[in-house]
Amino acid sequence: MDDSILKNIKSPDDVKILNEEEIHKLSLEIRDFLVENISKTGGHLAPNLGVVELTLALHRVFQSPKDKIIFDVGHQSYVHKLLTGRWDRFHTLRQFEGLSGFPKFSESDHDHFETGHSSTSISAALGMALARDVKKEEGEVVAVIGDGALTGGMSFEALNYAGHNKDCKLIVVLNDNEMSISANVGGLSSYLNRLRTDSKYTKIKGDIQYLLKKVPAIGGKLYKSLERVKGSLKYLLVAGILFEELGFKYLGPIDGHNIHNIEEILQKAKKVKGPVLVHVITKKGKGYLPAEENPDVFHGVGVFDKDTGQVKESSGTSYTSVFTKSILVAAEKDERIITITAAMKNGTGLKEFATKYPHRFFDVGIAEQNAVTMAAGLAKAGLKPVFAVYSTFLQRGYDQVLHDVCLPELPVILAIDRAGIVGADGETHQGIYDIAFLNHIPNMTIISPRNGQQLHQAVITAFKLNSPVAIRYPRDVIPEALVDYTRETIITNKVEKLTDGKDILIVTTGAITDVVLKATETLKQRGVRGTVLHFPFIKPFDKKGLLENTNKQDFTNTLIIEDHVEIGGLTSIVSRIYTEAGIGSKITSLSLPDKFIEHGSRNEILHKYGMSEQGISDKVLEILGLTGDKKYGKENKIRPVVG
Amino acid sequence: MDDSILKNIKSPDDVKILNEEEIHKLSLEIRDFLVENISKTGGHLAPNLGVVELTLALHRVFQSPKDKIIFDVGHQSYVHKLLTGRWDRFHTLRQFEGLSGFPKFSESDHDHFETGHSSTSISAALGMALARDVKKEEGEVVAVIGDGALTGGMSFEALNYAGHNKDCKLIVVLNDNEMSISANVGGLSSYLNRLRTDSKYTKIKGDIQYLLKKVPAIGGKLYKSLERVKGSLKYLLVAGILFEELGFKYLGPIDGHNIHNIEEILQKAKKVKGPVLVHVITKKGKGYLPAEENPDVFHGVGVFDKDTGQVKESSGTSYTSVFTKSILVAAEKDERIITITAAMKNGTGLKEFATKYPHRFFDVGIAEQNAVTMAAGLAKAGLKPVFAVYSTFLQRGYDQVLHDVCLPELPVILAIDRAGIVGADGETHQGIYDIAFLNHIPNMTIISPRNGQQLHQAVITAFKLNSPVAIRYPRDVIPEALVDYTRETIITNKVEKLTDGKDILIVTTGAITDVVLKATETLKQRGVRGTVLHFPFIKPFDKKGLLENTNKQDFTNTLIIEDHVEIGGLTSIVSRIYTEAGIGSKITSLSLPDKFIEHGSRNEILHKYGMSEQGISDKVLEILGLTGDKKYGKENKIRPVVG
Repeated sequence: MDDSILKNIKSPDDVKILNEEEIHKLSLEIRDFLVENISKTGGHLAPNLGVVELTLALHRVFQSPKDKIIFDVGHQSYVHKLLTGRWDRFHTLRQFEGLSGFPKFSESDHDHFETGHSSTSISAALGMALARDVKKEEGEVVAVIGDGALTGGMSFEALNYAGHNKDCKLIVVLNDNEMSISANVGGLSSYLNRLRTDSKYTKIKGDIQYLLKKVPAIGGKLYKSLERVKGSLKYLLVAGILFEELGFKYLGPIDGHNIHNIEEILQKAKKVKGPVLVHVITKKGKGYLPAEENPDVFHGVGVFDKDTGQVKESSGTSYTSVFTKSILVAAEKDERIITITAAMKNGTGLKEFATKYPHRFFDVGIAEQNAVTMAAGLAKAGLKPVFAVYSTFLQRGYDQVLHDVCLPELPVILAIDRAGIVGADGETHQGIYDIAFLNHIPNMTIISPRNGQQLHQAVITAFKLNSPVAIRYPRDVIPEALVDYTRETIITNKVEKLTDGKDILIVTTGAITDVVLKATETLKQRGVRGTVLHFPFIKPFDKKGLLENTNKQDFTNTLIIEDHVEIGGLTSIVSRIYTEAGIGSKITSLSLPDKFIEHGSRNEILHKYGMSEQGISDKVLEILGLTGDKKYGKENKIRPVVG
Repeated sequence: MDDSILKNIKSPDDVKILNEEEIHKLSLEIRDFLVENISKTGGHLAPNLGVVELTLALHRVFQSPKDKIIFDVGHQSYVHKLLTGRWDRFHTLRQFEGLSGFPKFSESDHDHFETGHSSTSISAALGMALARDVKKEEGEVVAVIGDGALTGGMSFEALNYAGHNKDCKLIVVLNDNEMSISANVGGLSSYLNRLRTDSKYTKIKGDIQYLLKKVPAIGGKLYKSLERVKGSLKYLLVAGILFEELGFKYLGPIDGHNIHNIEEILQKAKKVKGPVLVHVITKKGKGYLPAEENPDVFHGVGVFDKDTGQVKESSGTSYTSVFTKSILVAAEKDERIITITAAMKNGTGLKEFATKYPHRFFDVGIAEQNAVTMAAGLAKAGLKPVFAVYSTFLQRGYDQVLHDVCLPELPVILAIDRAGIVGADGETHQGIYDIAFLNHIPNMTIISPRNGQQLHQAVITAFKLNSPVAIRYPRDVIPEALVDYTRETIITNKVEKLTDGKDILIVTTGAITDVVLKATETLKQRGVRGTVLHFPFIKPFDKKGLLENTNKQDFTNTLIIEDHVEIGGLTSIVSRIYTEAGIGSKITSLSLPDKFIEHGSRNEILHKYGMSEQGISDKVLEILGLTGDKKYGKENKIRPVVG
């Protein structure tokens, strides 16, 4: 039998029976285990190192699954996963067909809500708590939320409504590590900082108590005044007055690495009736020096050397890094250009911009709605705002893009990074819906560059359009590292014919085009020559260009390849053009099907859904009825049956 | 010359020169004018009666358009419209081709931001204020926001970030009328209520000042204690501590109907450096008794008798009222059914439900994000939540529908009212994007009933599906008033063939089908017989049913009619099925084009875009090449040229 404590933990019950020494040993084991594993798989290391004691305490004080613990954002649920029977599969974390990096119903009954996007936990927990009361059941519901996630508007909406339901017991644990992904921003953050560091709150309480003790000797009006003050003080002199004002009982702040103290305060929280907020101070990266020193680097980290903390550099030039350079080139020439991020300065490639132009850079925190509409305000006032955002997080700003940017037709640029398959983050983070949720919005331009040079031209073009523009590009390396940043010619929506051939029409857009071109090389060896059309613009779509090509050749078959869901994407657009013109060419779509797409490396997932070099060439051969290793020749150039 | 003051006001400058008596007279004139006009046109009466003095004061203190005043939600901008040169067109308000009920760039330079949805103003104003500072320009930016709109999460995001930008001058005027559309909810609301009514804040300040005056005589430790208290008090004993904690200077509360006081406090606000919040208390409906007594009825009101306050009842049974009855029938039999609204209890038809089942009804305030995810939590805990919401406002919950409802496949029902053309509210409120933003989300079912009976069956069906369901229905009367609420049979996604004919295939969905059927009657008289297919489900779409019909008849032409934008709607869905099968039937789409759709009555707008009885029959005749009043016969049954 292994003398490891962790490896004997099958469920939270096994955590509850440990003594103080064993718990301490377990916490060290967990940290070692996390560092060891994540150094190989990559993952959200720093957030999880910060919540080791908190998670242990939660599982000692509460009875999951009867009590429900909901981790906001979910990437800090690794410790929870280890304590709920998943440590033995933890080496598969975020790998293709392995454990998810986020809570999943299918993985465990202890995962009460599937979280990936920020700021959802209080709403979900409140729903569960209200349901419990409607059904007259028992059990605690606990939302564990970071101070970063708290800046997301929906957290406030939920706090506000929880405060309204005074009789509905709900525990919110504020995991305050003074960071979201990078350092936190906002009035709320300063407020939390005061709670943490300002002794005024406690000092004044002591002072007034001293005063009151002395006062009886004074008597008269002074006494009456102080009596009234005493009554009010109870209300006013509360550390977490902001939360108290919203209707919460506030407990804390407390050291989040002292498990004994956390358990004590959680027990106290259990006794409170109605909504209660427990303020726990943790340190991101706790216990692993490289992560403590660089919590933003180790927030979501790739493979690294656990001894040196050296992160393995990814090879090749990324689309993100092209955007970085492109925006710097543009900003140098035009001081109206400003950039916005929602807590993703590093991820979206704005770090250098922020350093070079601190007064033209705005990090609004996790607050995509505000980011979009603030950009609209900036644009209305004559500036050229660029909101750099991951595709999946822009979903939060859908209404704002429609109502505040596109309706008044304001020149806001959305630099949509992580468009398409994102890889290890999986289901909750895929950037595969953006064409579908943007294309139907009037006044929107959507550019989908296929390489670094086109991305640069897209940025240049967007600044010239003076209307809303979205540029989508993936988390991927660009096919040609050489980008000429001095080129200022714009990119137009004209279709590019990349290869010419009569056997099939292949229509594509964006970065996946590189894979398509490789597939056509393979196909050539089988005697198959197709026409590849690349559309650098999704909107306005070059309908005329498409029809010129289809009319010229009268293709029996069209194959569309897009790193996006089929519904609402390029396949929909081309289909509508065909039906409008009455073109009967049969369209096959290599795109993402109508289901949530799992995690795995970007290449693994693209391959699974047929968008690898081989997948594409196989599909073409299948369409043309070319089985086995037969070469394509005149003899089998029959038209496949339609219908 | 008219002795009316209002009619001599061409711009805000004319307001600035009025003396106290004239201002008073003007405020009375404005109220009379609003009641007189809105009684004929309908509109947002109560909110505007509440801001007469506030708007006058704003335009006297600030220099619009150099100073920018942004009205949140925008429906309380009528007084602003009257003062900025639009009183003479005010009788056209919300009418087809008349003045918009919301701020519009195209109407006036004094409209600085186009607002229709709630809670956007602080973000927009903050963007403009930041732009001013980047450009080193001058001028105030003022966001005027109701206490209801303040509960929307994006307001908080903006307040939080404004509080962060300590040096950026921004004025937020909180127009606190204790209501959103119906009575307000939430911890914030209770907080504002305490600010309004609790004298503790001011009393304790007096008490402490008295103490401090006495204390020098005491000396010693007591003195030192009080000194420290004094230092802290400045920070703690502030009425608007919640706002102060977020980084705002708080001024108020103040009577919002005393124009002199408002001007004074606004002048004070001008002198503040950094973000400042001015708390103004107003009364919704002020000055018109029926509106004061029933502010929710007169929030957005139709035509009414201005003398009696009697609102003209709309004739016919509405889809909303069918939903009301249907949900009551279902709720009686299943106590797991609960309903949620985001401040739209009356509009969405939940009033009776709320009265009958107060513990199963939740009004979360203007907070659609929380509504959706809270519903997900309720569903996860075993209840059957129905979120009744206007199509346009569900846009705010897009990410939550995808991430919190559909990804975990939770049985949340979205009762989407005001789907399709909404009428007088126009551009900002059209419900014409919901198929496009829901259809690409996996696990979603979308039902689109064509009459009251189908709506009832849809509700019954939704509760049986145990997965996410959206039901979309318009702001319209149902074709047949008779609905059998005892029928419990479900509705399936099977296509309904409503008429049979070989001349054209007409495909439609939802309430517009009634108009389509009327058009086919007209067409019969011209000898044209088409097949009308109605799809009660958008998703899962009955592809097999469609193909059976198209394959049987081999229609040269297909006409699709949908009360929705063409992109991403029924036209897209059918087009993709055609191209997948290689069907060359040419599809014509009667749907909404790719531009924002203006206001006017629902019928006027549908007619304009070809979706009236006549529009549809004309389009069919045009497709068939049947000009003039020729009857359709064998001689002209030639296939139109394709391409």
